[in-house]
Amino acid sequence: MRDVVRIVELAGPVPDDGGSPDLARLEDFRDLSRADRRPDRPGGRGLVLAEGTVVVRRLLDSPYPPRALLGVSRRISELEAELAGLDVPAFVTDADTMASVVGFHLNRGVLASADRADAPDLDGLLAGARRVAVAEAVNDHENLGSLFRNAAALDVDAVLLAPGCADPLYRRSVRVSMGHVLRVPFRGADWPTLVAALRRAGFVLGALTPSGDVTPESLAGTDRVALMLGAEGPGLSVEALALADHRVGIPMAAGVDSLNVATAAAVAFHAARPAGVS
Amino acid sequence: MRDVVRIVELAGPVPDDGGSPDLARLEDFRDLSRADRRPDRPGGRGLVLAEGTVVVRRLLDSPYPPRALLGVSRRISELEAELAGLDVPAFVTDADTMASVVGFHLNRGVLASADRADAPDLDGLLAGARRVAVAEAVNDHENLGSLFRNAAALDVDAVLLAPGCADPLYRRSVRVSMGHVLRVPFRGADWPTLVAALRRAGFVLGALTPSGDVTPESLAGTDRVALMLGAEGPGLSVEALALADHRVGIPMAAGVDSLNVATAAAVAFHAARPAGVS
Repeated sequence: MRDVVRIVELAGPVPDDGGSPDLARLEDFRDLSRADRRPDRPGGRGLVLAEGTVVVRRLLDSPYPPRALLGVSRRISELEAELAGLDVPAFVTDADTMASVVGFHLNRGVLASADRADAPDLDGLLAGARRVAVAEAVNDHENLGSLFRNAAALDVDAVLLAPGCADPLYRRSVRVSMGHVLRVPFRGADWPTLVAALRRAGFVLGALTPSGDVTPESLAGTDRVALMLGAEGPGLSVEALALADHRVGIPMAAGVDSLNVATAAAVAFHAARPAGVS
Repeated sequence: MRDVVRIVELAGPVPDDGGSPDLARLEDFRDLSRADRRPDRPGGRGLVLAEGTVVVRRLLDSPYPPRALLGVSRRISELEAELAGLDVPAFVTDADTMASVVGFHLNRGVLASADRADAPDLDGLLAGARRVAVAEAVNDHENLGSLFRNAAALDVDAVLLAPGCADPLYRRSVRVSMGHVLRVPFRGADWPTLVAALRRAGFVLGALTPSGDVTPESLAGTDRVALMLGAEGPGLSVEALALADHRVGIPMAAGVDSLNVATAAAVAFHAARPAGVS
């Protein structure tokens, strides 16, 4: 590879860092099976971790400052163009050594770590937006990841996180989102802060709920729509429902549990897409 | 419990059947972690297995003849009404004994087994239907389960399985579908057989594809719509696309991978729902 990150070949037992700042970065990938990756948990490092070529590519194209890569030769080679000139170490090794670092076998062959970044300014986030999702208490990492994937596919400009949501930058969310949590801007805040900003920016608030009385299609003509989404099961809180301008329902067969929250969001965002988007 | 299935209390080491037809049914739940549950695989039994109260309830309300239940006392009690009069054994035991039978800890506390049933007649299936899904090569059990869940929620009358699909009655599909594979009728056949039956019944065929040139909304006014769906990644085969009357596309942001197949199906089925379904 030409003009690339610093390739560090690993073979045999993984060395300790011996004072090398590059080798110290190998710690980013150590023992990933521990659940507590959040900075607020004991032992949690709170890094952003991307798995697989597609998602690593999105990470390298994101606002999150990359720290290091670890992968088998073939996967690191696939990323040659994106890695050119990057000032980070890329550890190239075999699958068994990767597994001994990470703590289990990954079937995607490459990992990248990055630092978190400051959350974007709320008003700035909303300034150019036409469609945003507002998730409340979506505390399942996979559902949250799927929500970001669907938001990215359906041209949703931002995801706002009301209280109780999982961490979108947790490894499993990143993976399930196919890396789109690294692409769709988001930030968390309490309901009063979120709603004040949405009102300032001229958004109409639609709460998705099984008891909705308007279809999502009825919002297609509205310039700026914030679609509020609650977790599967409990749905939106009474507080959240009271803040909405409209209760939006997806017509559903009798006797069926609600759709998964990310699926319901996809249905509603497609139906409420701005007029002119064919 | 009154007037109920035959309760068989299990405590301590699980007995061999000693010639008891009831105890022999405990084999239905033995060693579930083996992947090969299909009748065509060595050791596969090909039973229908439901996990958790909600799904077991759907199984007991389905065309599949129940064989036995295994659960902790609280979960079996919740099913009292559905179990009344059923001619099957219900093994009531503790979580550890359940785990020793099943081979791992289940967190849903109750299992039911049933025999498979004959697939419904294709023409009969389509006679009263207005919206059907036709899946091709959806070989992931979770995606197939999600597809059935979404089909049930959005009033899809049947799911047809073109070649290459996973087994909808595999345990994981049943679970992810929330039991709706036991409720939405389905059957498999080759493409010529499926298409001939769909034509006889007056269906218009729409193939969901990223290169689609009509929106799903454009099919809302059509009386009978069959929506063809391919697996994530490869999509529909050239053969399948050639059979379609319309290529249906969901407007998607630039540079985004396609939606998950079950999510895309939900978006399209909502958008193409018959006029008059609000």
